[in-house]
Amino acid sequence: MKPINVKEKHEQFTATWHPHQIGVVDDMQVLLAKLQGEFVWHAHDNEDELFKVLKGTLYMQFRDRTEVVKEGELIIVPKGVEHCPMTKNNEIVHVLLFEKLTTAHTGKTEHQLTKTNYPKL
Amino acid sequence: MKPINVKEKHEQFTATWHPHQIGVVDDMQVLLAKLQGEFVWHAHDNEDELFKVLKGTLYMQFRDRTEVVKEGELIIVPKGVEHCPMTKNNEIVHVLLFEKLTTAHTGKTEHQLTKTNYPKL
Repeated sequence: MKPINVKEKHEQFTATWHPHQIGVVDDMQVLLAKLQGEFVWHAHDNEDELFKVLKGTLYMQFRDRTEVVKEGELIIVPKGVEHCPMTKNNEIVHVLLFEKLTTAHTGKTEHQLTKTNYPKL
Repeated sequence: MKPINVKEKHEQFTATWHPHQIGVVDDMQVLLAKLQGEFVWHAHDNEDELFKVLKGTLYMQFRDRTEVVKEGELIIVPKGVEHCPMTKNNEIVHVLLFEKLTTAHTGKTEHQLTKTNYPKL
């Protein structure tokens, strides 16, 4: 029940594509992540996923198009929809995610970038 | 699956203490609200509630203390905990809320400020 400063929390880690947990709301979690380059194509069969861009520009690739998500914008990826987050020009993009505690990082896709543990900040 | 500009959405209404829904993530919703003055003491017996301050300073009153939540900070109020959001000096504070679709605005407390319908933006 203490205020959480999101920007300060983001400064506490440097790893990209590794979500860190800053809070839990019922059965969902608030994650922070730094994104750089291209991630992994995957879907979450049973969970929606919210991305809010706090810094930089996120390119959310879907199979049929790419949505540009700018600072201050959010996008909700519905369950079952394949997506692959990307940043351009090597930009490190800061995002806040909101998703179920059960959501697997890269869905059923296994990849060297896949994380199974999200550190708590 | 379109980007949502939170600031632009906030400009689409003026009413205070009336959450507007901008998105749904599984069984939870993303709400925007403008707060001014003091709200109503209440608790949500079964749901946690996240407040993220986008503009201004929120004073989250609990029975034993008040937490100051500044722009860029968030606070998670656990289920069952009485709280009463407040702003000072008549400031209009912009917040983003994240809570269950089932969460009643003022819990079991009925008040003239209680809203039972959240417009969608």
